[in-house]
Amino acid sequence: MTDYALAVDLGGTKVEAALVDAAGSVLTGSRHRRPTGSSATSEQLAAAVTDAVRDALAALPAGATLRGAGIGSAGPIAGTTGDVSPLNLPAWRSYPLGGLVAETLTSAGLGGLPVTLRMDGICIALAEVWLGAAQGETNVMGMIVSTGVGGGLILGGRVVAGPTGNAGHIGHVAVAGHDDRCACGARGCLEAIASGPRTVAWAREHGFGGTTGEELAAAAAAGDDVARRAVQRSAAAVGRAIASASALVDLDVVAIGGGFSHVSDDYIALVGAAVAEHSDFSFVTKTRVVASGLSGEGPLIGAAALVHRTDLIG
Amino acid sequence: MTDYALAVDLGGTKVEAALVDAAGSVLTGSRHRRPTGSSATSEQLAAAVTDAVRDALAALPAGATLRGAGIGSAGPIAGTTGDVSPLNLPAWRSYPLGGLVAETLTSAGLGGLPVTLRMDGICIALAEVWLGAAQGETNVMGMIVSTGVGGGLILGGRVVAGPTGNAGHIGHVAVAGHDDRCACGARGCLEAIASGPRTVAWAREHGFGGTTGEELAAAAAAGDDVARRAVQRSAAAVGRAIASASALVDLDVVAIGGGFSHVSDDYIALVGAAVAEHSDFSFVTKTRVVASGLSGEGPLIGAAALVHRTDLIG
Repeated sequence: MTDYALAVDLGGTKVEAALVDAAGSVLTGSRHRRPTGSSATSEQLAAAVTDAVRDALAALPAGATLRGAGIGSAGPIAGTTGDVSPLNLPAWRSYPLGGLVAETLTSAGLGGLPVTLRMDGICIALAEVWLGAAQGETNVMGMIVSTGVGGGLILGGRVVAGPTGNAGHIGHVAVAGHDDRCACGARGCLEAIASGPRTVAWAREHGFGGTTGEELAAAAAAGDDVARRAVQRSAAAVGRAIASASALVDLDVVAIGGGFSHVSDDYIALVGAAVAEHSDFSFVTKTRVVASGLSGEGPLIGAAALVHRTDLIG
Repeated sequence: MTDYALAVDLGGTKVEAALVDAAGSVLTGSRHRRPTGSSATSEQLAAAVTDAVRDALAALPAGATLRGAGIGSAGPIAGTTGDVSPLNLPAWRSYPLGGLVAETLTSAGLGGLPVTLRMDGICIALAEVWLGAAQGETNVMGMIVSTGVGGGLILGGRVVAGPTGNAGHIGHVAVAGHDDRCACGARGCLEAIASGPRTVAWAREHGFGGTTGEELAAAAAAGDDVARRAVQRSAAAVGRAIASASALVDLDVVAIGGGFSHVSDDYIALVGAAVAEHSDFSFVTKTRVVASGLSGEGPLIGAAALVHRTDLIG
């Protein structure tokens, strides 16, 4: 019989749940989502998670085995015991999301299964190593460039979660030459410079008339100078943050996904060029920057890896 | 009988060797040094290492056991097999320092013992966890602020060396708001802003008349405004780089040593304040910044840890 993991991905705009088998395939019909959002109350968020999980569990085939639940959560999280404090979901601070999922499993007659929660960036890194662009690699950063900039680290073949579960916050590594205020309270963070919204905002300050990443992408493709420079500025900042990260932890591969990483066909190449230009150290410039090998199912596959690929988890 | 490690520390101005017992004590009379320097030839560097090692080995008491050799080297290094390419020793590029020490052991009738080489910053981190300011901690960065700025990481209780052996290069993590050119080819690296020589150079550009770190320390202590601002500038940059590092790897403790960390009585406190001020994330601000608990023997004790504390080495 097939073994499944319940995979849950909690983000700032939605929560998704699905059943994922040991080969990393999402069971058809098991993937369900509910909206979240920064204005949602704690009760609304809990209902969204519970509903998505129940719908996913209802798809468990007769006779199949559920091995456990893996949860990827937007950060910060509060340790690796299942509590979360997502920056963009202010109603939840040190909220026991792992406990909520465990209760939902119990209500569905599946109590007592292991429930493992990690930051969503860690799940992305796991998915890249398991089935994505970093298969077979042991020193990897998975990265998302989207509304925010997030990531996760696998070093020496094992996830680095950190004592609070928050290792991998590449979006809050500083970039030289910048001093923009970040939502985290710091200045010059990568996320405050290179995210989709911040890149569009920079372009608008320089005369771009659009308001979305899609409009920016279209303008850059059409040869608009400001739009093109905005794309280059974002990619250069990502590359410089990767150079800092590789100086610190000696990365072999960085796999980049997320909506804004598709803003231009050469975005990944621009990032890689920025890493190579930024240092004479071969241990920095050897870092390969590649596009994510994951589909939109990546976050769920990564959450499922918390169940199916415990060999990668520290 | 007592077990000893041969400890070797290769730096830009000198190489030291000594015998260190399993409790981390340097055997009296076994510590020897020779000059190195950026103008030394490869042959001169090899003779310096060989002579220091032979002198140290000559102190091995009758009946005592040598368990192996641990070598800390200035970076970059070329993997963990014993080859080194120290930035400030240009005569050595991919030079087999581990092999040289192994040959010297053989010549002394001690062939076949294990020889382990890691970057000097990693040895400092090991020494801090073994016998210094980070005893009992499992998520640690050891740091040196001196002519350069270096470091090493212990995460989850194990050394992170990286695939090329160069993890821990905190001196080449960028600092927001700066764009100074670094010797590594990048811009805005911590080392290019906060090292002793760079801090003195900044002070001189702002009217300070001295030329050494000692003079800067004296002037700052005497209330000279430019000297004081130079010290604050260095500490703030170190703190911001630590905040980036902790965002990426979630550190509990950073132990800072090196000559320039003594430039002011409150230097460590200023660094700690900069970390706390730089972020609203509790997983960043929880990082404790402490003064090194090591004496001038720290680098040798850390090299000896490569032999005596293999439980900490990944």
